[in-house]
Amino acid sequence: MMETLQVFKIGGSLMNDNNLLKSFLAQFCSLPHKKILIHGGGKLLDELATKLNIPQEMMNGRRITNEDTLKLASMVYAGYINKTIVAEIQSNGALALGLCGADLNCISAIKRPINEIDYGFVGDITVQNINVAVIENLLQQLYIPVFSSITHNNQGQLFNTNADTIASTIACALAHLYRVELIFCFDQKGVLKNINDKNDVIPFISEENFNTLKNEQVISKGMLPKLENAFKAIKAGVEKVVLIHYEDIGSLRNQNIICGTQLQA
Amino acid sequence: MMETLQVFKIGGSLMNDNNLLKSFLAQFCSLPHKKILIHGGGKLLDELATKLNIPQEMMNGRRITNEDTLKLASMVYAGYINKTIVAEIQSNGALALGLCGADLNCISAIKRPINEIDYGFVGDITVQNINVAVIENLLQQLYIPVFSSITHNNQGQLFNTNADTIASTIACALAHLYRVELIFCFDQKGVLKNINDKNDVIPFISEENFNTLKNEQVISKGMLPKLENAFKAIKAGVEKVVLIHYEDIGSLRNQNIICGTQLQA
Repeated sequence: MMETLQVFKIGGSLMNDNNLLKSFLAQFCSLPHKKILIHGGGKLLDELATKLNIPQEMMNGRRITNEDTLKLASMVYAGYINKTIVAEIQSNGALALGLCGADLNCISAIKRPINEIDYGFVGDITVQNINVAVIENLLQQLYIPVFSSITHNNQGQLFNTNADTIASTIACALAHLYRVELIFCFDQKGVLKNINDKNDVIPFISEENFNTLKNEQVISKGMLPKLENAFKAIKAGVEKVVLIHYEDIGSLRNQNIICGTQLQA
Repeated sequence: MMETLQVFKIGGSLMNDNNLLKSFLAQFCSLPHKKILIHGGGKLLDELATKLNIPQEMMNGRRITNEDTLKLASMVYAGYINKTIVAEIQSNGALALGLCGADLNCISAIKRPINEIDYGFVGDITVQNINVAVIENLLQQLYIPVFSSITHNNQGQLFNTNADTIASTIACALAHLYRVELIFCFDQKGVLKNINDKNDVIPFISEENFNTLKNEQVISKGMLPKLENAFKAIKAGVEKVVLIHYEDIGSLRNQNIICGTQLQA
């Protein structure tokens, strides 16, 4: 039987509240399996950009990344947030290693092709861009890789890459070596049946369900690409995808407690 | 015979000019020995602090680091500069790993004790704070560790630590495993006999010379702590300390070309 690897994506308000982050990471460290953490930090980037008068433009939920914004992203994601998380994990006695895609060439990328929109320094990745040998080597040494959502093109250029995409692509790339669980931790208790009732969580979604829920427009705009990516991950061999409130991470210690929304083949 | 390890400290205008940095790192990568790079970035931090209206205060050449300044330091040093350097080294075909002291607990520190002045989140280190086992493991895998000058206290608190100090302390900590050369790359051609003549470089300084030069006040204020640290390193077993202009790094490939200032026991 393959060993379990949990790939976590964290985002949302967790990044803006040090006490929430501390409490989340203490629970995270107490989970027994091998782990990888991927984080975003868009809200903090927006705050800094506002202070510096660097206008931000979003297109289809993706950030247009000019040179100034890339610089901010490398500062906020790979610097402040990444090192804050790493120091906090270390304080829980685990060996965290903060990384961006350029470090040890863990994640390379190509500039998103210009089709009508030029996203600037945004990098697209596929499973082939994940340096499985290097990441596996880090996991074998019981290091916890903590990835910021910055990649590179092997020619000295950094890129901004969507953190959800990095999480699901890493999960897929390691699915032949581990029994991978991909866990999205966010501000909601899961996928909601009724968006106005934060407790009305859909506990399981199969691919068949998903199509019905799409047709009934139960699944809303922002959740759609997340879930489409999630089903792609399951098709690529990821055992399970979970969408969960970050406060419920403790439930992952007990297989019998079902929290959040689980996606299965 | 022990293998050679070159510990480089870079700073000064190199951080503010991408073309200079590219050309330096290409030469750096072509050097045959195992290497560690430590970088500063104070000028870029000052620029960002000015834009954000966060006043900076220096005391005895050290930055008073309040919470806001620490945040900026983690952004500028561990984020933007560190990842720019790492991506550039990768583009030269070498495996760079960007680190701060919190990563894998490479460098822990204690808050500088308050004696008249409270430096805030400034961390002091000694040889005992260097995680030799982890750094040696990285070197054995032919990774090039690239350190930003951020440390931590093992309790989740990041610190700002002087980059010169980190470089010489790492050099000392590894001197029982390697034949260590400590190389300070900066904006001058070496230690100058006459500060107004940039070509009047003192090629060798022994400890005896050093005392004479101090008494004659040939060695100026800013250079004094650098050289005192350097002689400490030599006493702790570091083979050689070199102070060199970053444009002269290529000279290190040829033992017969003497560039910059060499300090020897």
